[in-house]
Amino acid sequence: MHNENHAFVPADVPEKKRDIFIKNYHAITRNTNHLFLFSCDHKIEHLNNDFYGATINSQALHPEHLFRIASQGTIGAMATHLGLLARYAKQYPNVNYIAKLNGRTHLVSCEQQDPKSLLLWTVDDVISFKEENKLMINGIGITVYLGSEYESEHLFQAAQAITQAHKAGLVTIVWMYPRGKAICQENNPQLIAGAAGIALSLGADFVKIKMPDATNMVSSTQALKIASAAAGNTKIIYSGGEMINAQDLLSQLYENIHHADVAGIAAGRNIFQRSLAESIILTQAISAIIYDNVDLKVAIAHLNQL
Amino acid sequence: MHNENHAFVPADVPEKKRDIFIKNYHAITRNTNHLFLFSCDHKIEHLNNDFYGATINSQALHPEHLFRIASQGTIGAMATHLGLLARYAKQYPNVNYIAKLNGRTHLVSCEQQDPKSLLLWTVDDVISFKEENKLMINGIGITVYLGSEYESEHLFQAAQAITQAHKAGLVTIVWMYPRGKAICQENNPQLIAGAAGIALSLGADFVKIKMPDATNMVSSTQALKIASAAAGNTKIIYSGGEMINAQDLLSQLYENIHHADVAGIAAGRNIFQRSLAESIILTQAISAIIYDNVDLKVAIAHLNQL
Amino acid sequence: MHNENHAFVPADVPEKKRDIFIKNYHAITRNTNHLFLFSCDHKIEHLNNDFYGATINSQALHPEHLFRIASQGTIGAMATHLGLLARYAKQYPNVNYIAKLNGRTHLVSCEQQDPKSLLLWTVDDVISFKEENKLMINGIGITVYLGSEYESEHLFQAAQAITQAHKAGLVTIVWMYPRGKAICQENNPQLIAGAAGIALSLGADFVKIKMPDATNMVSSTQALKIASAAAGNTKIIYSGGEMINAQDLLSQLYENIHHADVAGIAAGRNIFQRSLAESIILTQAISAIIYDNVDLKVAIAHLNQL
Amino acid sequence: MHNENHAFVPADVPEKKRDIFIKNYHAITRNTNHLFLFSCDHKIEHLNNDFYGATINSQALHPEHLFRIASQGTIGAMATHLGLLARYAKQYPNVNYIAKLNGRTHLVSCEQQDPKSLLLWTVDDVISFKEENKLMINGIGITVYLGSEYESEHLFQAAQAITQAHKAGLVTIVWMYPRGKAICQENNPQLIAGAAGIALSLGADFVKIKMPDATNMVSSTQALKIASAAAGNTKIIYSGGEMINAQDLLSQLYENIHHADVAGIAAGRNIFQRSLAESIILTQAISAIIYDNVDLKVAIAHLNQL
Amino acid sequence: MHNENHAFVPADVPEKKRDIFIKNYHAITRNTNHLFLFSCDHKIEHLNNDFYGATINSQALHPEHLFRIASQGTIGAMATHLGLLARYAKQYPNVNYIAKLNGRTHLVSCEQQDPKSLLLWTVDDVISFKEENKLMINGIGITVYLGSEYESEHLFQAAQAITQAHKAGLVTIVWMYPRGKAICQENNPQLIAGAAGIALSLGADFVKIKMPDATNMVSSTQALKIASAAAGNTKIIYSGGEMINAQDLLSQLYENIHHADVAGIAAGRNIFQRSLAESIILTQAISAIIYDNVDLKVAIAHLNQL
Repeated sequence: MHNENHAFVPADVPEKKRDIFIKNYHAITRNTNHLFLFSCDHKIEHLNNDFYGATINSQALHPEHLFRIASQGTIGAMATHLGLLARYAKQYPNVNYIAKLNGRTHLVSCEQQDPKSLLLWTVDDVISFKEENKLMINGIGITVYLGSEYESEHLFQAAQAITQAHKAGLVTIVWMYPRGKAICQENNPQLIAGAAGIALSLGADFVKIKMPDATNMVSSTQALKIASAAAGNTKIIYSGGEMINAQDLLSQLYENIHHADVAGIAAGRNIFQRSLAESIILTQAISAIIYDNVDLKVAIAHLNQL
Repeated sequence: MHNENHAFVPADVPEKKRDIFIKNYHAITRNTNHLFLFSCDHKIEHLNNDFYGATINSQALHPEHLFRIASQGTIGAMATHLGLLARYAKQYPNVNYIAKLNGRTHLVSCEQQDPKSLLLWTVDDVISFKEENKLMINGIGITVYLGSEYESEHLFQAAQAITQAHKAGLVTIVWMYPRGKAICQENNPQLIAGAAGIALSLGADFVKIKMPDATNMVSSTQALKIASAAAGNTKIIYSGGEMINAQDLLSQLYENIHHADVAGIAAGRNIFQRSLAESIILTQAISAIIYDNVDLKVAIAHLNQL
Repeated sequence: MHNENHAFVPADVPEKKRDIFIKNYHAITRNTNHLFLFSCDHKIEHLNNDFYGATINSQALHPEHLFRIASQGTIGAMATHLGLLARYAKQYPNVNYIAKLNGRTHLVSCEQQDPKSLLLWTVDDVISFKEENKLMINGIGITVYLGSEYESEHLFQAAQAITQAHKAGLVTIVWMYPRGKAICQENNPQLIAGAAGIALSLGADFVKIKMPDATNMVSSTQALKIASAAAGNTKIIYSGGEMINAQDLLSQLYENIHHADVAGIAAGRNIFQRSLAESIILTQAISAIIYDNVDLKVAIAHLNQL
Repeated sequence: MHNENHAFVPADVPEKKRDIFIKNYHAITRNTNHLFLFSCDHKIEHLNNDFYGATINSQALHPEHLFRIASQGTIGAMATHLGLLARYAKQYPNVNYIAKLNGRTHLVSCEQQDPKSLLLWTVDDVISFKEENKLMINGIGITVYLGSEYESEHLFQAAQAITQAHKAGLVTIVWMYPRGKAICQENNPQLIAGAAGIALSLGADFVKIKMPDATNMVSSTQALKIASAAAGNTKIIYSGGEMINAQDLLSQLYENIHHADVAGIAAGRNIFQRSLAESIILTQAISAIIYDNVDLKVAIAHLNQL
Repeated sequence: MHNENHAFVPADVPEKKRDIFIKNYHAITRNTNHLFLFSCDHKIEHLNNDFYGATINSQALHPEHLFRIASQGTIGAMATHLGLLARYAKQYPNVNYIAKLNGRTHLVSCEQQDPKSLLLWTVDDVISFKEENKLMINGIGITVYLGSEYESEHLFQAAQAITQAHKAGLVTIVWMYPRGKAICQENNPQLIAGAAGIALSLGADFVKIKMPDATNMVSSTQALKIASAAAGNTKIIYSGGEMINAQDLLSQLYENIHHADVAGIAAGRNIFQRSLAESIILTQAISAIIYDNVDLKVAIAHLNQL
């Protein structure tokens, strides 16, 4: 599973863009089929709540903190909104970027209105931005809210964005979240597996899902493995979620990589809510598991540098 | 009725695309006017529920199972979403495909919101995908929810997709489902017959409908025959529905082909919820009835190969 | 009023399309200013209810029945959806057609949702279909629901369709129906007259309205005459409605033609719910009144051929 | 204020269209900065209610009545829907026309749904119609419902229509009506003044508003003068409203012209609900005040011709 | 922080538009990174309420008052709707303008409907207007309502307008307002900081926010400083709000500039509700603080000129 030097090129990537797609794919997977996504779309999704507070390092308040980590740490790619890229990416040209196309705040509750997250930028906006600035924008990201009353609009714009991105040789990542009044249990294993399968049916290369809950039938890891099967040749990265102990994060990652067939993790708060120094080292430890196939102990030993 | 070597070409197929349309039509009907559609849009419609569970063969969890059946079995065409085709169809180039253009999950109930299933891909997306990959994509499929509060949007996009597909010489199949708060009885015979007639009025070549319920006036088969008449020169394929005993499936199919004037069946779960070996044999038995006009006993004898 | 050989050409018909418009107008009015429209949009509007039932001739179940009547009977034009034309019109090339552009089922009640009937095909679709097939498609038809919460969308698409159709030299007919939660009395004389006036303000050549109810001030015929005045140079055809006794139908038609200044009738169920033989003779009797200006007795005598 | 021979050309009229704009402006203002608009959009707005009834002259039932008045009377311009122009304007080529772009009926009450009046025709439709027919279409009219839940859509389409019309050298007139569930008092002076100011902010040349109500602080005329100030260099024409005594109409007009700084009146029912002869004379009396700056007595003397 | 002669050029400004962007940026910041925006969009937002009333100077009723202040006073730029610019800007060509693209009235309460403010003009409208008239239109302004049920539409149109404006070398300013049924406390410090951060994620150059409320943890100024950090390299201008004592206004401004890291103020009512003479002097005092970095006392001394 590890260290394979093979990029699967979906059939909606035209012949003349195959090489570009493979190059983009290899860049963010570091020539494996694995992916460590540094997820940084929180300034729209959660406003200032993830960047300022009692348990958050004060450096996180400054948006440039995200780019410093991406630039000095070791990641696959940093995913953030195109508008933020327009203001910082040129100053950090050594980073691989995934341009996130949509976003919404959490201000309106599901009880009031089901989640709706329209595309803020088109794939063409990404392409012209990339060409103008010669930046390493390797792909696009888009969120789909399944089970929302706007599900159909989300599916439509995701299918179209994937089709268009593949036509340009860009890698595609779908954030697939069941959410809305109709969703009782967002992390139900069968639901999560189904969500992963929908990303496949939309043609995505990677799907970001939340960790499924354990049930009295399956553990979280077993449920994640079922989801990996349901996703077929679309690869799963699971959400890191809220900040937890770094060692626990690495253990969970190791387990999921080795026993749940996932391609990696999408981590944000777990990284950027720490100081720059801590963040950098944590990205190195995560990358060691994801890209270098090290033992858990070796990965954890990274943390001792602090 | 059987074995006629005649393709009806609707008048919205332009002269220069007649030969292509006839070729597509003959491919999926195997030079008859009958059709065995291997229906595989469930990963969006039903998430993982049709692929993993107590009564489902474990092979079904892997999306490639669908393509293995289509490739090794004997079918008219496999219908699935364009995104899924982008990830597997090139690996299975010997299969006839129908590109399904829309889809939605069942997560939101009718009580909360009437069904809405926007087009995820355009007919142009299908055409450029087909041309790029030289695959046998013979037509397009689209679902219409009659009686939904979004009925008008569904009728619009179906009429337009049919018009555009015919202009390109593609065969068109409409999934015509009465559904929504206004629909008390989805399988009412007069309603089903009306639904079939609407597919005709939209210009479709085939319409997929559910089996009408028997009433104290007519049997299911008689009701289906009335629907076939109401559909005029649009041909009916009926939904196989949930997995049932293979022999019963074949008996029902034989009855409907020979006494209800239908063109064939759209079967999905009845096939792919079995093992690959069983699935392949069942497709052979179904094709024997639909395309080879064999007696029921001969068809059932196929099953003994297992 | 009768037998005038003059076609009024509205000013949104460009100079270079005047002759085509006049030709289309003369074709369906048979060189009078009168119109007998054989209305056949029921397969979408009423599903199978108008085609199969205790009081309906069994031939009506087969969609081709409509085209046989149009081809063998004597009518001004047959109005039906473009999708149905795509499947039968080429087999019946001697018929004048009006392509109906929108339609909806009656499945959702006004109490649940006000009527909404989006265009299913554009005027451009009609034009390219006509040119490809050299069929006699003389005009377009479109339904407007006044007083619906979607009234504005209906008015918009009707105004645009009329403008575009006139630019191509096509005759335009509006089905103008007050309907929705806000409408207490659909057939109120002042409301019907107003509806006719709106068709004029939209620029339509003909407007199809329902017979206004009699009040204690005016008879139905007098009310219809007021509506004819309110419609100005847009000509009224009234709806035949449900099947009634053929002799009564002719008497009412004669009365409305001669005392209510209408241009003719739009009849559907009154014709196609009979056998082909009866239908043909009835169309001849209707045409005798509308186009040949015969006495009522002469028209009724036609019926004796049966 | 009177008789100034100066047309203000807004800056969104391009240089090459300045002369056309000035010509259009001078045509309807008769080389003053005043305007007598003969408002004739009622067939859509009020259906038949303004054209047929106990207090209405029977000539009003016939739509051509409107054009006869415009042609034989003395007005600045006649405003009506483009569809109606397509059916009569060519027969009355000596009239100045304002093409009204949107309209809705009063059938749905505000309690049921806030007013929504989409554009039925585009500015481009007006321009191509004008060019095809060489008619004197000097401008466009559009209604905005402030305070409606669809206010934003109305503001958008008005701003766009004004921008496009000015690009073509057409004069623009906004019907600015506060209306909807949120509006307690449509004719509140501060609200009316604000409405006039919004027309200015949209870039309109003229704004049609209703007479503000008198309060215990200001008379109607004083309130109208405040609105005129708030409108800046957008000129106000006030609505004539329901038919009143001709002498009262003239007195009110004289007062508003001379003490409220308005540019004129938009009168419809007050004119067309009378006989052709009376209508013509009344238009002459109104024009005498608006365009010829006569004394009230002189204007009223006109009425004695009857 | 002050007097730096450096314009940050975001990466979505193409190379060939860099010089134009820098010129526009320097024009409104007067070669600093500070901005005094004379905010004049109130005629749409608040109708006549801000221009006529007991505490408002009577000159404010006349729209030209706004342009006289902008022309004779000392400001960075005047922000107002494109329609108003079309009617006055050419007469005041020495003013720097920001074209405001959207607007809505306050007539519909949040309880009835969440705020919705569609674009009334496109960036292309601004560009062609600017080119036609050779006016100093240095940028565009757009309002976003966070937490509204139409938040997604607002974010979309803001992201697109910013992208397009930057492509043309125009500076972009977002009015970022949390508002709607879901917003309990519009001026909550963490919410305001988050709002500023969203402007950054959209790619805006400046964001206009309201003063955050003081809490028992932070003062208003401290809260504003946190927001400035959260906004990264997007610069904050805070809303002047309702008219207050001029000296208090200057004190607050001085405090916010020197201790909250803001770039300046967006003031409207505080200026235009005074007489022309007073307004002019106040703009000079504000500019002295913002652009000339004078002591508070020096700035206040300006007021003594009256």
